[in-house]
Amino acid sequence: MTMVGPENADQARLLRMLRDDGPRSRVELADALGLARARFGAEVDRLAAQGLVETAGPAASRGGRRSSLLRIAEQVRFGAVVVGEGRLDVALTDGELRVLARHGEPIDVRVGPEAVVGRAVELLAKLRVEAGLARLAGIGVALPAPVAVRDGAPASSPALPGWHRFPVRDTVAAELGCPVQVDNDANLMALGEHHAGTGRAFNDFLYVKLGDAVGCGLVLDGALYRGATSGAGHIAHLQLTEDGPLCVCGNTGCVEAYCGDAALVRQAVAAARAGRSAALGDRLAAAGALTMADVAGAATDGDPIAQTLVRDAARRLGQVLVNLVSFANPAIVIIGGAAPGIGPVLLAEIRGVVYRRSTPLATDSMPIVLSDLDDRAALIGAARLISDQVFAAC
Amino acid sequence: MTMVGPENADQARLLRMLRDDGPRSRVELADALGLARARFGAEVDRLAAQGLVETAGPAASRGGRRSSLLRIAEQVRFGAVVVGEGRLDVALTDGELRVLARHGEPIDVRVGPEAVVGRAVELLAKLRVEAGLARLAGIGVALPAPVAVRDGAPASSPALPGWHRFPVRDTVAAELGCPVQVDNDANLMALGEHHAGTGRAFNDFLYVKLGDAVGCGLVLDGALYRGATSGAGHIAHLQLTEDGPLCVCGNTGCVEAYCGDAALVRQAVAAARAGRSAALGDRLAAAGALTMADVAGAATDGDPIAQTLVRDAARRLGQVLVNLVSFANPAIVIIGGAAPGIGPVLLAEIRGVVYRRSTPLATDSMPIVLSDLDDRAALIGAARLISDQVFAAC
Repeated sequence: MTMVGPENADQARLLRMLRDDGPRSRVELADALGLARARFGAEVDRLAAQGLVETAGPAASRGGRRSSLLRIAEQVRFGAVVVGEGRLDVALTDGELRVLARHGEPIDVRVGPEAVVGRAVELLAKLRVEAGLARLAGIGVALPAPVAVRDGAPASSPALPGWHRFPVRDTVAAELGCPVQVDNDANLMALGEHHAGTGRAFNDFLYVKLGDAVGCGLVLDGALYRGATSGAGHIAHLQLTEDGPLCVCGNTGCVEAYCGDAALVRQAVAAARAGRSAALGDRLAAAGALTMADVAGAATDGDPIAQTLVRDAARRLGQVLVNLVSFANPAIVIIGGAAPGIGPVLLAEIRGVVYRRSTPLATDSMPIVLSDLDDRAALIGAARLISDQVFAAC
Repeated sequence: MTMVGPENADQARLLRMLRDDGPRSRVELADALGLARARFGAEVDRLAAQGLVETAGPAASRGGRRSSLLRIAEQVRFGAVVVGEGRLDVALTDGELRVLARHGEPIDVRVGPEAVVGRAVELLAKLRVEAGLARLAGIGVALPAPVAVRDGAPASSPALPGWHRFPVRDTVAAELGCPVQVDNDANLMALGEHHAGTGRAFNDFLYVKLGDAVGCGLVLDGALYRGATSGAGHIAHLQLTEDGPLCVCGNTGCVEAYCGDAALVRQAVAAARAGRSAALGDRLAAAGALTMADVAGAATDGDPIAQTLVRDAARRLGQVLVNLVSFANPAIVIIGGAAPGIGPVLLAEIRGVVYRRSTPLATDSMPIVLSDLDDRAALIGAARLISDQVFAAC
């Protein structure tokens, strides 16, 4: 494969500016980069010759000679793969990381990495052909487990049985002939938020991912923070109580055992079977099983048992956040993955705990909000991850 | 005052290399900076003219023409002030941040910031005169409270009553005519560790400061991390239990209420008065009061009550660290401020809790060690803080 990319730091900065801020006039860009016109023109010509940037029409006049708008070239497309809890999503984005085309389908990660990664490759290849592209500029992959980022492979995790050390990065790169990066899904959701969501306005924030697995991505000093061994943000198995419910990890009282979707669903099923909630009982009888959407639906319909389940989980999450917020002092906490409809209750409970207990210096005016990117956060974050590599000076 | 300092990024990098790695040959330095000989020579000449660097003699021969060693000039001296729990320490360091002269004395921070800061200025001026210096290159100040770093003033804190928003930075700068920076003591201890202690070998670590006040400094991705509002690392008031002992902050069950020196001393006095520990009772009778050194002494002498106090506090600290380590994934945890003699017991208990509970990805081979810088950590860190500013390109 032919490698394309910026040849120096100025070209790299230019590409990232166009990615992050969209089309801008040549005059503005040259000013922002602190480059003389001739030098700037030469750098742009080299990027254009590589097919990385192109003219997007005339810029709005600022008086004097009219400048033209520059943008990332149309043909620059990133791929994104998100392996989720029971779902596989793939997407193509443009150079500004907007999702242009996507496909999602149910999967069972327990069939193993070969089948799931193989299917992701197939779907990406299909999207690429549909878009009329010879190749993708790069692909980012999100996995619902700790990832050894340097190896491009998942670490051992109950969420991905049989995936330990499977070379996800190298497999996808070999199949599709472009650069690939792999990371944990909560990390990439945080990156997606930082690129296109509420997190865009903040240099320091925590992104908390709810779902069957609970996770946290940290953006600190404007960059994703992964820790010494790619382990930062793994809050699922922090212990809230010593005598709490049993967790999938084998310990008791973990955050996930209190706040994970599976934990709530389990309690909801028990309540339905015991006849304590007619609303949950009806849903269970109708479908033969309950999902988090059922619990959320019953709660928003006013079922007191379902509401209590949601509130208790939110309060537990609040207890964890109190500590994390005091320790890390983020500017904002963004919560993603909440089941439809329960956002307001969730936020009210979490805020109640956090604002009551945190140290003033850490929480003065610190907002706690729901993500507004829905399930695009991880896709955009995956594209962002690989674009950071592709748009870096060689 | 005449401002001196590097004029460009290359000069700044050169000064920091000499500060961090000590004298090196011109040839090596030019290579490390990627500068041609002539350009390198010109930059060195400009720094020498400002009195910032000087020749330290011939370098060891590597064959060919002999190079000479370069170092930070003798006349570059940084001042450090550490306002502690009942103590004021001031020091002068050389350009490599080695402590050359110091003075410490008991203080009561409750007399207010004017008196304490005034005394620090007096002591620094005295050390400066004794060293035969016209001025200091800069001064770093450590306070035992949250600090609004941008303002150079402490935030509201029970540890420094009456100090809220007192302009420590501007007061010292006006008195001594040089750049000044102020920060929280745990932050500066972490910086000191990063410069001259065990932390030197690590880019990601937590420094936990024990004492009457418990704190934590975070070095992440090779730099001190302060959070969105200078609040990162404030672990003293994380809640361990809802029904725990009352804390000075007004809440119950805080880390400091379990693990702070004052909490242990209070429990030791109670045990002595109740006749439960002869060793503590004897010490109380002899001195009329107990200190943390008494508790530590009794524990190392084998008193079971004192040993239990120390072990319980260590276990509680371990419970906090489990969560922080899983969340932040540091490469090492360094513990400072432990009373003499109790280090081994402390570490054994903390390690027991942390290694048993943490997620494997976060603690695989993560050491937990005692600081070996003693009370120099904060002094060196304070000098490091201001040297980072003085050795930055204008």
